[in-house]
Amino acid sequence: MTDAPFSFQPVSAMEVPRFAGVPTFMRLPFVPLESPHIAQVDIGLVGVPWDTGTTNRPGARHGPRQLRDLSTMIRARHPVSGVEPFMARNCADLGDCPVNPADTMDTLDRVSTYFKSLKAAGITPLVAGGDHLITLPVLRGLAQNAPLGLVHFDAHTDLFDSYFSGCKFTHGTPFRRAIEEGLLDPKRMIQIGIRGTRGGDDVEWGLEQGIRIVTIEELYDLGLDAVMEEARTVVGDQPTYLSFDIDSIDPSFAPGTGTPEIGGFTTFEAQKMVRQLSGLNLVGADLVEVSPPFDPSGGTAWVGVSLMFEILCLLCENASDP
Amino acid sequence: MTDAPFSFQPVSAMEVPRFAGVPTFMRLPFVPLESPHIAQVDIGLVGVPWDTGTTNRPGARHGPRQLRDLSTMIRARHPVSGVEPFMARNCADLGDCPVNPADTMDTLDRVSTYFKSLKAAGITPLVAGGDHLITLPVLRGLAQNAPLGLVHFDAHTDLFDSYFSGCKFTHGTPFRRAIEEGLLDPKRMIQIGIRGTRGGDDVEWGLEQGIRIVTIEELYDLGLDAVMEEARTVVGDQPTYLSFDIDSIDPSFAPGTGTPEIGGFTTFEAQKMVRQLSGLNLVGADLVEVSPPFDPSGGTAWVGVSLMFEILCLLCENASDP
Amino acid sequence: MTDAPFSFQPVSAMEVPRFAGVPTFMRLPFVPLESPHIAQVDIGLVGVPWDTGTTNRPGARHGPRQLRDLSTMIRARHPVSGVEPFMARNCADLGDCPVNPADTMDTLDRVSTYFKSLKAAGITPLVAGGDHLITLPVLRGLAQNAPLGLVHFDAHTDLFDSYFSGCKFTHGTPFRRAIEEGLLDPKRMIQIGIRGTRGGDDVEWGLEQGIRIVTIEELYDLGLDAVMEEARTVVGDQPTYLSFDIDSIDPSFAPGTGTPEIGGFTTFEAQKMVRQLSGLNLVGADLVEVSPPFDPSGGTAWVGVSLMFEILCLLCENASDP
Amino acid sequence: MTDAPFSFQPVSAMEVPRFAGVPTFMRLPFVPLESPHIAQVDIGLVGVPWDTGTTNRPGARHGPRQLRDLSTMIRARHPVSGVEPFMARNCADLGDCPVNPADTMDTLDRVSTYFKSLKAAGITPLVAGGDHLITLPVLRGLAQNAPLGLVHFDAHTDLFDSYFSGCKFTHGTPFRRAIEEGLLDPKRMIQIGIRGTRGGDDVEWGLEQGIRIVTIEELYDLGLDAVMEEARTVVGDQPTYLSFDIDSIDPSFAPGTGTPEIGGFTTFEAQKMVRQLSGLNLVGADLVEVSPPFDPSGGTAWVGVSLMFEILCLLCENASDP
Amino acid sequence: MTDAPFSFQPVSAMEVPRFAGVPTFMRLPFVPLESPHIAQVDIGLVGVPWDTGTTNRPGARHGPRQLRDLSTMIRARHPVSGVEPFMARNCADLGDCPVNPADTMDTLDRVSTYFKSLKAAGITPLVAGGDHLITLPVLRGLAQNAPLGLVHFDAHTDLFDSYFSGCKFTHGTPFRRAIEEGLLDPKRMIQIGIRGTRGGDDVEWGLEQGIRIVTIEELYDLGLDAVMEEARTVVGDQPTYLSFDIDSIDPSFAPGTGTPEIGGFTTFEAQKMVRQLSGLNLVGADLVEVSPPFDPSGGTAWVGVSLMFEILCLLCENASDP
Amino acid sequence: MTDAPFSFQPVSAMEVPRFAGVPTFMRLPFVPLESPHIAQVDIGLVGVPWDTGTTNRPGARHGPRQLRDLSTMIRARHPVSGVEPFMARNCADLGDCPVNPADTMDTLDRVSTYFKSLKAAGITPLVAGGDHLITLPVLRGLAQNAPLGLVHFDAHTDLFDSYFSGCKFTHGTPFRRAIEEGLLDPKRMIQIGIRGTRGGDDVEWGLEQGIRIVTIEELYDLGLDAVMEEARTVVGDQPTYLSFDIDSIDPSFAPGTGTPEIGGFTTFEAQKMVRQLSGLNLVGADLVEVSPPFDPSGGTAWVGVSLMFEILCLLCENASDP
Repeated sequence: MTDAPFSFQPVSAMEVPRFAGVPTFMRLPFVPLESPHIAQVDIGLVGVPWDTGTTNRPGARHGPRQLRDLSTMIRARHPVSGVEPFMARNCADLGDCPVNPADTMDTLDRVSTYFKSLKAAGITPLVAGGDHLITLPVLRGLAQNAPLGLVHFDAHTDLFDSYFSGCKFTHGTPFRRAIEEGLLDPKRMIQIGIRGTRGGDDVEWGLEQGIRIVTIEELYDLGLDAVMEEARTVVGDQPTYLSFDIDSIDPSFAPGTGTPEIGGFTTFEAQKMVRQLSGLNLVGADLVEVSPPFDPSGGTAWVGVSLMFEILCLLCENASDP
Repeated sequence: MTDAPFSFQPVSAMEVPRFAGVPTFMRLPFVPLESPHIAQVDIGLVGVPWDTGTTNRPGARHGPRQLRDLSTMIRARHPVSGVEPFMARNCADLGDCPVNPADTMDTLDRVSTYFKSLKAAGITPLVAGGDHLITLPVLRGLAQNAPLGLVHFDAHTDLFDSYFSGCKFTHGTPFRRAIEEGLLDPKRMIQIGIRGTRGGDDVEWGLEQGIRIVTIEELYDLGLDAVMEEARTVVGDQPTYLSFDIDSIDPSFAPGTGTPEIGGFTTFEAQKMVRQLSGLNLVGADLVEVSPPFDPSGGTAWVGVSLMFEILCLLCENASDP
Repeated sequence: MTDAPFSFQPVSAMEVPRFAGVPTFMRLPFVPLESPHIAQVDIGLVGVPWDTGTTNRPGARHGPRQLRDLSTMIRARHPVSGVEPFMARNCADLGDCPVNPADTMDTLDRVSTYFKSLKAAGITPLVAGGDHLITLPVLRGLAQNAPLGLVHFDAHTDLFDSYFSGCKFTHGTPFRRAIEEGLLDPKRMIQIGIRGTRGGDDVEWGLEQGIRIVTIEELYDLGLDAVMEEARTVVGDQPTYLSFDIDSIDPSFAPGTGTPEIGGFTTFEAQKMVRQLSGLNLVGADLVEVSPPFDPSGGTAWVGVSLMFEILCLLCENASDP
Repeated sequence: MTDAPFSFQPVSAMEVPRFAGVPTFMRLPFVPLESPHIAQVDIGLVGVPWDTGTTNRPGARHGPRQLRDLSTMIRARHPVSGVEPFMARNCADLGDCPVNPADTMDTLDRVSTYFKSLKAAGITPLVAGGDHLITLPVLRGLAQNAPLGLVHFDAHTDLFDSYFSGCKFTHGTPFRRAIEEGLLDPKRMIQIGIRGTRGGDDVEWGLEQGIRIVTIEELYDLGLDAVMEEARTVVGDQPTYLSFDIDSIDPSFAPGTGTPEIGGFTTFEAQKMVRQLSGLNLVGADLVEVSPPFDPSGGTAWVGVSLMFEILCLLCENASDP
Repeated sequence: MTDAPFSFQPVSAMEVPRFAGVPTFMRLPFVPLESPHIAQVDIGLVGVPWDTGTTNRPGARHGPRQLRDLSTMIRARHPVSGVEPFMARNCADLGDCPVNPADTMDTLDRVSTYFKSLKAAGITPLVAGGDHLITLPVLRGLAQNAPLGLVHFDAHTDLFDSYFSGCKFTHGTPFRRAIEEGLLDPKRMIQIGIRGTRGGDDVEWGLEQGIRIVTIEELYDLGLDAVMEEARTVVGDQPTYLSFDIDSIDPSFAPGTGTPEIGGFTTFEAQKMVRQLSGLNLVGADLVEVSPPFDPSGGTAWVGVSLMFEILCLLCENASDP
Repeated sequence: MTDAPFSFQPVSAMEVPRFAGVPTFMRLPFVPLESPHIAQVDIGLVGVPWDTGTTNRPGARHGPRQLRDLSTMIRARHPVSGVEPFMARNCADLGDCPVNPADTMDTLDRVSTYFKSLKAAGITPLVAGGDHLITLPVLRGLAQNAPLGLVHFDAHTDLFDSYFSGCKFTHGTPFRRAIEEGLLDPKRMIQIGIRGTRGGDDVEWGLEQGIRIVTIEELYDLGLDAVMEEARTVVGDQPTYLSFDIDSIDPSFAPGTGTPEIGGFTTFEAQKMVRQLSGLNLVGADLVEVSPPFDPSGGTAWVGVSLMFEILCLLCENASDP
């Protein structure tokens, strides 16, 4: 995180204890868009600290900071694949994307503009939310030419049409909007972990579009391996986005989120499922809905950054060469 | 929750955000016994905010309020069965049953009187405790003609004889008392999830009475399906009560309880087991031992009300027609 | 809180323990606008559960619920004045005002419409926020004929012009907007407790308008009595609104708020200052910025409702006769 | 805390860190009634872990354990008077008095029997509660010959007659019962710090008996010194008991209690007031109502044991010679 | 815990509530080394309250106290095996071993000296840490004649060579040091549950020494039964030590630890694995890395003492006859 | 915090919300020693994340990170003096000083070497601890030519000689060591706020050296103004260091610290006292002993950074011209 000599390697915990230093994602160098080093970045870890799309309990705007804090406990090598992402690609903390907590439409513009810039710069983003509405403007930034495929882990479909007498942009609506806008191809979408009491027509609408919706019951009935194999088939080898809502995991592992649903999968199962996405054509990914006020201990953020590392190892495979 | 026009439907979250409004169980109308609408109620959700039967760590007296608070996140339709309990039956929040925190015997009288009134009014109760001793006076109210069967999820048998030099009424003794009083038929009782270090003769006494006691080890050895099938056989098609102690679930999911035991089942397993009780002749049910002071985040109460919704869907099958 | 026989008296703690029952403000009856009893209400306690105006740490949308919860510990008589507000006037919990967490402009409309209805019904409101922006639409509802005076306890002036590139409606701007709209007469405004590091031109602008701004240093230099005497002089005997931001109190007493500033006054001093406002021509009041996620213990909400009781005793003096 | 060689000195923090070891009160030896060393004890620190007299939020049964835990941070010498209580008298942790959490009347018997034994053994007790009802049986143990005087710090008078349709024994009634039983002389009683909203006739009844009731407003109006001088006059030089309810202190300092009232005095003021009681004829004292579930950080218990040390220094003056 | 008549039985919860009394491990008598009863002790439960070996988040020094506190909820009989350890052997709480929080080398000396004394006295230790470095001096005390075997549950190998420019003694290095010192036979060592992102050469070094390292993935692939069978084969029937790091369990069950890794095993699985070690030649055991500041609720300590009871039942089999 | 164009101004909250971005002290640019911008820095805010000198409850190693987090709520102008430190001097976050959590002597060397570099670079340090032992090596770095004067706010003297059988370097000994080493002139030292139970000879030794020790009682007896006037006289116009231990403030305001003492001064009083040090010849300052694990809400860190801002305004007066 210093100017000279600049390095894309994380600060070593054998030199600097993990609790020390200004916390960047995974102790990587901080390289904002205006930095001279930005051109060398392959994968950019970036926060979108915003939760005004939240219809129930807010707090995800504080997610990026707590995720950065806990991420300083991440080491350099994947325990199973042996991938070393910081050696494989130039990774950096780009800081936080511009947002406006008091204005949803302005924020949608700021975020999509920012991610268009990243795409233009050839940087693959790994995004830390923020509530799930932020995925919409990220997709607006990334899906400029053709609809993307989507692997989506979540307790909820986020396919609702509107809330509160016509409000079209909340964290319950991003994927309906994204399909309507042609950012996602519903036939290349799979949603995994859906559960909880229901209201409205979200599931019905999604099925009509051709989305593959895997409830938690179906996930266990079919088995994780079969579902992940199906996920690979659904999205194919075309450009695909990965969106991981922390509330897909059971709230005993990840209580710090605004809309928990009991009966979710474990972190071990989450790790196994993400690992089975190796080889996909991923153009970006996010981890959203970590809400620190509902988990001051940071356990949820630790789950979040541990999964961000898993996803980062996937992104390394597909990012531009270092 | 308004007087005019009165409706048994919950407040809509598409109109009123879930964090808004006076919190009643599942956003249902508040219909106390003296309300003119009480005659229309089929299923009554009612709190028994009392924990003076607690021998160790108190706090369950605060359970009903926190359960109400979290219950405002419950939606209207079951994700698997599709049951819509608020459409199927007239459900209402009856408020809290009278109690006396400073006098156990007086409380036992108040609670049994109250539940006799409910029975007389033809209302099927879904009770939110309170410590487990409250099940005794509830049973006194409901089992007036013949002993009931019991499906009982718990880490403990609650079959002890006495505490502290002869104290017969604590949350460790309700089912022994209920059997002695002829409120329960021990041969139509099954206890599921029993575990933890032991002392005393509770298990031995229970087995002598003919109770089917399924330890956590046996539950996993036999499999959940087999045990639930056995539960259906044990209680048969005669009137049966369902008692769910939150401490049957592993404390990582439900830390907010007074006497946790490690090594319990998951919430997903709890949901699956409860769902397999469909078709039983249930005359009432309770969910007890949620103790908010040991879980200020409300995660345990969220587990509790999520299971109350599962149980409510069961009760709908057997309650009087709407 | 029952229909028959209806009473404006709170539930008695000598009959029903304070932790029992559906929590309404101060255990008063719940009387929404559509209730047949609404015409008898003199003073309405009402929540505005909204915080989308918050520029920093959200959570005040959860304020009304926690304030209701803690308010069940309030008794019936003022310890110093002996006022018994529930005997003096018909007080009721009106429930929560309509809001839209995802749309600020829509919320401003919903809230002002609601408070116009209250004014039309002759009900004096005691409002529980919510963030401080809610005061703006409340004033739009109440100040229909002429600008009101204002006694304002706060750590901040909330007189900023805009945030985030032109955002005019945040919890840092309500009083500037209210003056611009002619809802408040700046020469009849006093702000007490102002402190904390500064940025922008809020104080300068306020002084130019003629607002009396009393910093915390000046408050102690002049003495509480002198400042409150001055407050009475500033607002005079014309219609006046009282706005109490919980962050005016030192965060050791009230940590549950989004923008704390150290070095504030104590709760005892707050009580003394509010009591010295007896006799003013108060047309309404609010207590805002209680943010439960930052104080799960409820201590801040307890401070909040204790002050709401103090304010309620003031409102009794001026509300329409019972 | 070892058998041989036995010592009445606390474990040294220069040898054993304060977080180490089995926690006894102030690291003193554990000397239960049946120990051969009991005859040498002058002052006994003893817990009464019981809260079944609590009408609102329980938890004080856990007080003694947390008080012991935090008490290991207490050192040996008073910073102002220089008194070294462990040198001046033989002090010991006697353990906890027998109680029955499920039976109030049985507990009253157990506690009074225990304190009669202490009195017979010539041991001056310093009691850690427990809720305030425990003071009644302690007084039954100590006031066997003549009524005692009382210096009573509290936010509440605890002079109510009954709760919940005739319940005479709760933590709101001990001093009314004690006067009725002739254990206290109301004309030698002073209550300091009374505040909070009111209900019932407690203050009126107390004044009729001749109790000196000092509200928080009067305390500050008269000044702490004047009130403490009056306290000394009220109780005179006859045998007197000191009862300190932690809720007399403002809840910002001591949030861990069941019935907080805002606007209380500070810990510094509490220390000053207690110190001014030097020279009284104290036959025992208690510190009650510390409720750990409402303050898991232990800050309230730290306040509690810090005041217990202040009181211990007073008791040293009057206990039998070492 | 009294002197006369002395008993090695725990305090009965049917007489003394579990929240009452000075907390010793499992309510056993406190018998320090200098007690006359020490000669009769078979198994000694002892704390090592020290965490200066911690490279990241400290707090394990507070482990023994919180473990003692929660351990008062342990009963007397194993639910599956029926073993009653307090009947089978003379068990006692020996208090805490001497430590120096400000000096690592001094602490290593104090701890090894202490455990040599225990060994000389024929007492089998069950140790409560403390960070994992404490296992090194415990092994120095116990492995005086020949290297021991080791069954080691952990998320980490703790086989690193050094930290921070050459620091050889941290909680990441104890087993490398123990092998180098000949205290452990690497060919009789098995490590179970290893996971998390990696850095350094710990695993490689361990495999070179011949240690059997079972990652979490391998544990589930092989199955718990097979791995535990292998563990029995690896250590054989020679003297063996059991070291249980609480972070081997998933952090949803045991968040109170300094270096959590997601994706761990459950408490039920931990219980099953420990139970399968019955019959081994265990000369001692520890449970380490419980860090109360990261879990004030005590849930982690409850997991810890529940596992200590499991381990105690194992130790009973091999300790000297009573 | 960007490379181009570089600015010493904090990030604006009118552009970037305060919860957004990588958290540096007061949102200043991060300029480590090896940065090309380091030569322009006048005042360096620097963390020393270390607490191995702590004899009781650790956690202060986490202080700098939480202080940085909360510091993003600091604005640019002092509310009373109007000083704008970021305009007056080039201020920057230098990151954290090298430390070794597992080795005290190594850490003392690393820290003193670092601060010698700062002194050589002409940078005035504002240090965030860490436990109080870190002040010793900071003084070794700054007091190279002559002993410094000291204004010291603390509940404790930190003048002890040794702990645990001869341990000379703990957070209870730094000022005794500093005097012995000639780093401080005891006759130019004043300690303010001393209180709490006592043990050992610290006060006596300090008085013998000529230190002015002001207990909390004396502080209030003399009045804050008189004591601060005396402080100015004691240190005179020679080079002076300011050390602020957060535990000098009452624990109700600052619970997040390892060795709290009740009866301290308020934050308002702290602000007033610090402000009265204007004009002193300050060569550096620290704020120490903020321990986040004992206050996860961050309230203590907020007090800490609010006081760091006050101190920063003092340092601006004396730092080299911009």
